[in-house]
Amino acid sequence: MTRVGILGYGNLGRGIELAVTQNDDMELVAVYTRRDPATVKVATEGVAVKPASALDSGEEPIDVLVLCGGSATDLPEQTPKYAALYNVIDSFDTHANIPQHFAAVDAAAAGAGKVALISCGWDPGLFSLNRLYATCILPAGADYTFWGKGISQGHSDAIRRIDGVADAKQYTIPVEEALEAVRSGSNPELTTRQKHTRECWVVLEEGADAEAVRKAIVEMPNYFADYDTTVNFISQEELDRDHAGLPHGGFVVRTGKSAAGSPMTIEYSLKLASNPEFTSSVLIAYARAIARLAGEGASGCKTVFDIAPAYLSPLSDEEIRAHLL
Amino acid sequence: MTRVGILGYGNLGRGIELAVTQNDDMELVAVYTRRDPATVKVATEGVAVKPASALDSGEEPIDVLVLCGGSATDLPEQTPKYAALYNVIDSFDTHANIPQHFAAVDAAAAGAGKVALISCGWDPGLFSLNRLYATCILPAGADYTFWGKGISQGHSDAIRRIDGVADAKQYTIPVEEALEAVRSGSNPELTTRQKHTRECWVVLEEGADAEAVRKAIVEMPNYFADYDTTVNFISQEELDRDHAGLPHGGFVVRTGKSAAGSPMTIEYSLKLASNPEFTSSVLIAYARAIARLAGEGASGCKTVFDIAPAYLSPLSDEEIRAHLL
Repeated sequence: MTRVGILGYGNLGRGIELAVTQNDDMELVAVYTRRDPATVKVATEGVAVKPASALDSGEEPIDVLVLCGGSATDLPEQTPKYAALYNVIDSFDTHANIPQHFAAVDAAAAGAGKVALISCGWDPGLFSLNRLYATCILPAGADYTFWGKGISQGHSDAIRRIDGVADAKQYTIPVEEALEAVRSGSNPELTTRQKHTRECWVVLEEGADAEAVRKAIVEMPNYFADYDTTVNFISQEELDRDHAGLPHGGFVVRTGKSAAGSPMTIEYSLKLASNPEFTSSVLIAYARAIARLAGEGASGCKTVFDIAPAYLSPLSDEEIRAHLL
Repeated sequence: MTRVGILGYGNLGRGIELAVTQNDDMELVAVYTRRDPATVKVATEGVAVKPASALDSGEEPIDVLVLCGGSATDLPEQTPKYAALYNVIDSFDTHANIPQHFAAVDAAAAGAGKVALISCGWDPGLFSLNRLYATCILPAGADYTFWGKGISQGHSDAIRRIDGVADAKQYTIPVEEALEAVRSGSNPELTTRQKHTRECWVVLEEGADAEAVRKAIVEMPNYFADYDTTVNFISQEELDRDHAGLPHGGFVVRTGKSAAGSPMTIEYSLKLASNPEFTSSVLIAYARAIARLAGEGASGCKTVFDIAPAYLSPLSDEEIRAHLL
């Protein structure tokens, strides 16, 4: 059995708890929280809720600690800290800062003889794997990543910070014509605006100026200004009824040609009713790999690129060769 | 530079030769053939053509030998034989015999301190990888593999063996309704007939009985009897003009649910203008991995499940983390 600990009990932490129940060789030992443990009610019977400080001894009975904090401020601090004490895995997704995060985590894990895996999930994660495999196999080509249709938490939060907005959800939507152009192998050069549209569902505060809110959204730099954005005003009741989920997904497409000019297309896509529950399923499969690697004496920081696929499976090498090859 | 040798100069061998030219860190050293080398004209200047027997010394200047023979009779003999002398890679695709082939190759390679990789390509190969990743991530689910639209060499050969047939090509075609049912997440139980249709383009010999040939095809056990098969009679000129290529492709779809019941779909698909050229591109990426593993002192037989993705790339770990993660 691989003994799992969770640090942080938000959407991702609850997803990890669910994912563990689908894997007979995994066991959730404890949820660690920075809140008062008495206020955190977990879904699984028999799972301890402990203060995050309990981890500091390095002696908690866990094989892998799954770090469920955010990439902005939690993980840059937490992952190196706990990689010096436990085998850890995170879903750090600030692409530009990955080299720096890797270096900090690698130093901590290597020094302590622990294994860490960063930036796991579906993007970064499964999409990264598909970009790598496809690029290596079709060196003469181009690849494209499209996201959605799905809820972007960052963009939803940005709308909620606007004066006059009571609540909001934002969907990122790939442009079908752009996706078709990519699949055709024509290697289109696509602007940000041509690849995705943004669809906003906004609940106004009493007396707010709808046109001012709409303008503040569509002109917001980085988040919306470079996109075709539609803004819909609805009631809180409608938002809660029709937009409560956290669906997501997307496409990684690489088109290329052989040296003889034969066109080839490799496409990978995900359609996910729950982004955090799927991300958790990926993390738990990789937690298995981390525990195995640690058992073999490995140490240091890894990414999905470093993990041989067989390590993700609860089946023996003989079984996967017989049934999945 | 990774020095590559090719044994067998058919469609696959020529594809390997093409694929090497797209990878700056790879070099084709020699083509080995069981034919009279004087009769084999390779496309690349400066590449030696040698008799297969030249390999027997174990001293040919190659890092990886790519075995381009057939799975029925060539590879079961060749791969163990040459795995005792060189690092080797093959595309053995007789699924039922993989455990036996693995055992023979592993014994030879491990004994000689060489690395071998069997059953590489797209199925087995990339499709296997996607079945494994998807199964580990969505343990509660079902997966489906569809092939085509593409030319099946085995089925084309089977038609050509019928009395009265001068030439033939056979396309395997996935049934769109079945694929849509799978994508919907309804976990359909699909019969062989419901998943694929077979489309035959047949050139008759002078005076042959078309109806007898049609009947012989559609009633042929294993190959056609379990499928809805259409037979079209055309001239040799039309066959050569419209059906000269070797396109193929297919789909691996896994649908599953989180423990909370959220439906998820993972789909991988390939659309290939040339099956042998694409298979070759996969083999050459894995040849790079094999050479690296051998350089690290690894030995024994591997499959795609055992190879960490980073080994396929000519880029450094830092580069792939910065640009592809």
